[in-house]
Amino acid sequence: MFSCRIEAFISGTGAGLHFEFEPVGVVHSCFKEKFGIPRQAGLAVDAPARIELMKDCRDPATVRGLAEFSHIWVIFVFHQCLRRGWKPTVRPPRCGGNHRTGVFATRSPFRPNPVGISCVRLTGIHHQPPRMELGIRGGDLLDGTPVLDIKPYLPWADSRPHACGGFAADPPLQRMTVSFSPEAEALCRRREAAGLPDLRRLIVQILSLDPRPAYAARDRDDKHYHCRLYDLDVEWSVSRRRVEVLDLRTIIDGD
Amino acid sequence: MFSCRIEAFISGTGAGLHFEFEPVGVVHSCFKEKFGIPRQAGLAVDAPARIELMKDCRDPATVRGLAEFSHIWVIFVFHQCLRRGWKPTVRPPRCGGNHRTGVFATRSPFRPNPVGISCVRLTGIHHQPPRMELGIRGGDLLDGTPVLDIKPYLPWADSRPHACGGFAADPPLQRMTVSFSPEAEALCRRREAAGLPDLRRLIVQILSLDPRPAYAARDRDDKHYHCRLYDLDVEWSVSRRRVEVLDLRTIIDGD
Repeated sequence: MFSCRIEAFISGTGAGLHFEFEPVGVVHSCFKEKFGIPRQAGLAVDAPARIELMKDCRDPATVRGLAEFSHIWVIFVFHQCLRRGWKPTVRPPRCGGNHRTGVFATRSPFRPNPVGISCVRLTGIHHQPPRMELGIRGGDLLDGTPVLDIKPYLPWADSRPHACGGFAADPPLQRMTVSFSPEAEALCRRREAAGLPDLRRLIVQILSLDPRPAYAARDRDDKHYHCRLYDLDVEWSVSRRRVEVLDLRTIIDGD
Repeated sequence: MFSCRIEAFISGTGAGLHFEFEPVGVVHSCFKEKFGIPRQAGLAVDAPARIELMKDCRDPATVRGLAEFSHIWVIFVFHQCLRRGWKPTVRPPRCGGNHRTGVFATRSPFRPNPVGISCVRLTGIHHQPPRMELGIRGGDLLDGTPVLDIKPYLPWADSRPHACGGFAADPPLQRMTVSFSPEAEALCRRREAAGLPDLRRLIVQILSLDPRPAYAARDRDDKHYHCRLYDLDVEWSVSRRRVEVLDLRTIIDGD
């Protein structure tokens, strides 16, 4: 009995009710900054990550039977959105960034309780004491994300393919074509040979989703963009709905 | 800017990290006790409930655009499971109650962080200042459940009909036949005429799922069971996979 792990408590009733949670794990992900992360799970299907379970949750008994499930829910905290607070409405990028929608009608990370849910593929369970890790793919989780809970995905309860999706009824439409400059291509191949085998495919998946802010995507845009993936600074530009990857630069700690 | 509503904070790093959340709302539901509640959302499709938004979340702007969605996620706290703690394994009723499964491989309410997610139908948004309520159906939510978040259901991101579901791959199979004694039938009709129009159908949906504990369902069983629905004590028994509703008794406060 691990009663000491229960951090939730009731401090009062009604207005004073609040709950305290301690993470059960932490995400180690290729996404080292918010910019570039797909705006929902499942969009960059190959994006790899690990969930490292912590404290009592490292007990291998906690995941007994989990390997039978192909997908899991990750319930997590938008930990980089804690300090900015929230507003009753947000401007979803899907609406071009200039239409205000109620926060509860969006999946924005800036919410009254900054909690997210993501359905991801479970690729493995790795127990090398004292470490206990779950391998996942297809997430939209920032490196360092605190995990509050892991649940099996139950298709008969969680899958509602005919649900109506409002302004976000369909997946983001216009996937952009992604090409690499000769320099970026060569650097990418080198890193693939040195331990990041799916790197090119992953970069294509991420950049084809057009991670730019909505206002940039509307306008003529001759900026160079950067996002951090693993230990790489990926530099790209957009012209006529085509992305060109210009450079991949290894970030040395302290950059 | 409602920054005062952000109760989440980081108290340290690593082991000391914890988060504090305040409910954004509370559930008013026909389910007045845990016994009888379907073991997942969507099983009793007609079960009605309301989510009453609280404090700053009552601002109608928070739900602008939400009515376009047919389904929402309710992220909530299993508030009646806070004090019992958790164990690394549980015995899911789906496995007959005598097989231990890892807590993260189940949807058990007794979890390290007792947080649940349920996909429910959104039936209406009711704003009668100062009250702001969402009407929902198909939930598995106990009356009084604290709600941490509401999110639109996005079928393209959340619906994975081909996910493999492990030991819980299919919905609970054996729906039982439900009949009413003449007395229960008459009482039910009377309450339907007096403001609970779907009562009979709801009782059939709930009892056909066999809410008995797994050990009772395995054995010969001549018990009378009771569960509380609205202000009613529903009494039933099971014989040869048939449920008979014996009585419906109005509970007077203080019973």
